[in-house]
Amino acid sequence: MSTHIATNDIAIALRKGNRRALARAITLVETGGINARTLLQTLYTHTGNAHIIGVTGAPGAGKSTLVNSLALHWRKQHQTVGIIAVDPTSPFTGGAILGDRIRMQPLSGDSGIFIRSMASRGRLGGIARATDDTIALMDAAGFDIIVVETVGAGQGEVDIAGAAHTTVVIEVPGMGDDVQAIKAGILEIADVFVVNKADRDGAEETARQLRAMLQLGSASNGGWSPTILLAIAMRNEGIAEIAEAIDSHMVYLRESGQFAQRVHQRVARGFESVVYEAALEHVRKRVADAGGWNALIERVARREIDPYTAAATFIGDHLNAPE
Amino acid sequence: MSTHIATNDIAIALRKGNRRALARAITLVETGGINARTLLQTLYTHTGNAHIIGVTGAPGAGKSTLVNSLALHWRKQHQTVGIIAVDPTSPFTGGAILGDRIRMQPLSGDSGIFIRSMASRGRLGGIARATDDTIALMDAAGFDIIVVETVGAGQGEVDIAGAAHTTVVIEVPGMGDDVQAIKAGILEIADVFVVNKADRDGAEETARQLRAMLQLGSASNGGWSPTILLAIAMRNEGIAEIAEAIDSHMVYLRESGQFAQRVHQRVARGFESVVYEAALEHVRKRVADAGGWNALIERVARREIDPYTAAATFIGDHLNAPE
Repeated sequence: MSTHIATNDIAIALRKGNRRALARAITLVETGGINARTLLQTLYTHTGNAHIIGVTGAPGAGKSTLVNSLALHWRKQHQTVGIIAVDPTSPFTGGAILGDRIRMQPLSGDSGIFIRSMASRGRLGGIARATDDTIALMDAAGFDIIVVETVGAGQGEVDIAGAAHTTVVIEVPGMGDDVQAIKAGILEIADVFVVNKADRDGAEETARQLRAMLQLGSASNGGWSPTILLAIAMRNEGIAEIAEAIDSHMVYLRESGQFAQRVHQRVARGFESVVYEAALEHVRKRVADAGGWNALIERVARREIDPYTAAATFIGDHLNAPE
Repeated sequence: MSTHIATNDIAIALRKGNRRALARAITLVETGGINARTLLQTLYTHTGNAHIIGVTGAPGAGKSTLVNSLALHWRKQHQTVGIIAVDPTSPFTGGAILGDRIRMQPLSGDSGIFIRSMASRGRLGGIARATDDTIALMDAAGFDIIVVETVGAGQGEVDIAGAAHTTVVIEVPGMGDDVQAIKAGILEIADVFVVNKADRDGAEETARQLRAMLQLGSASNGGWSPTILLAIAMRNEGIAEIAEAIDSHMVYLRESGQFAQRVHQRVARGFESVVYEAALEHVRKRVADAGGWNALIERVARREIDPYTAAATFIGDHLNAPE
């Protein structure tokens, strides 16, 4: 079989549900470049049908197990599920990708499930961009539900809320001294809270704290009061309730008219990052043409010029001038 | 007292070691804008003297306590210490900032220590940019050591390695199912590993696993073999050894000639993000001038046009044309 397949053939096969075509398409968008763009341009009009769900939580909160159980639940209801596990692992080690595949084994062999790990590629906005594009590909491939699973800390959480229609945040009882900090940032993005490993001491207390913090904090989630649920994902307890809460949130979004608003936010965020990246690419091309990029960095490193002046000079020289 | 102070006055006071001036300067760079840029331009030539140390680890690993103890150790050696606690908390809640101040109490009242929490501002590259700028301010203010403390997960870790000369990664025994994944990503950035809470079961085993993974992985840290140390930060055990390992790493960087290389990498990364941001600002100005940004997003949201085509059109229309 030829290794060269035209992007148009990939797009057609992907739309027909061909898994290999989807896998290749994702690899293409991870790599970036002109073929990826052509593919996404072709498929974009076929997106907008999936329910995109973000699942986040600290390491060890049991995200993988919970997503696994939810996926099995949805499959029993004949819904197809795409899973994107956003992973802090570098592409050079690949340990986590293997790990993912192993943990997802109960789901393997089911053609209604597609799992993909995304590894950080180190470039600014890289994971967010590749994740958005992969969501678009799975959406165009016809998956009913797309789950984006990320390790929750800092920027990652904010990103997932921007990418998803519904954001599920997993907590576990007694996570240590940084929990307060993380919770504070999370209050604004969570649509559903799950206190997982609820057989541990302090589960009720964690739920109570969350409830108190939500009452204290702004009710800024557009009128939706985040649902707080207990679960033991490992034993499949509480999974149906989580799925139900996710459904209810989608119903709420649609009935309140906020769905269109979330879609607008998603698109605005995605579009900004595309323009951002295109602008940088444009600048880089100018850099390559003009030469002098490294020389400029050396001057900044020697403290002969500050980065702001250097950048302003560069932008002035290369962005305003006609080609 | 007037609330308006010229940036030049702030720069002069900051260089003289005035803490209020430093605090105001940091607030300025967090907010961004023209005054921040002027200030950084003025101060940039006075930077490049501090040893910048990144400290990262999962929530609950004991980062705060360890940084606290290290700072006290350095103070006994008459070194001044700036601490930047990069925090996933949103600016709207502020819980963690308060938390930070409380936990750092043993250090308060010491004029050789300056602590600042940075909260995520949600914009792409926002924390990284503000952190870089705050490092520059503390550097210009004459602090010998600058510690950047981040919750380690995903992109955050990669960023901290880019910002620091020496990166310290904290692990704790038995962190659960995601540890493998995180370790894999961390191997390439850690200069010093600390297994904290070493009185817990499995500390030696965690150290052994790290050692094994380091041997398996590439020796890509430029010839430096990461030091692996046990510590109990809460009881001040192992702190002197960590400080010594950090020192040794700096000696290694200087003697091997890699220091210049790290500085170049830091500058290149910082400069790229400044250019990135300046390019986006430039694009945004064009957006505002041209109108139609929101109309374009609406067309993308309605799937009439894909974001890539829209972005390319926009860039072509607004970035190449002369003012």
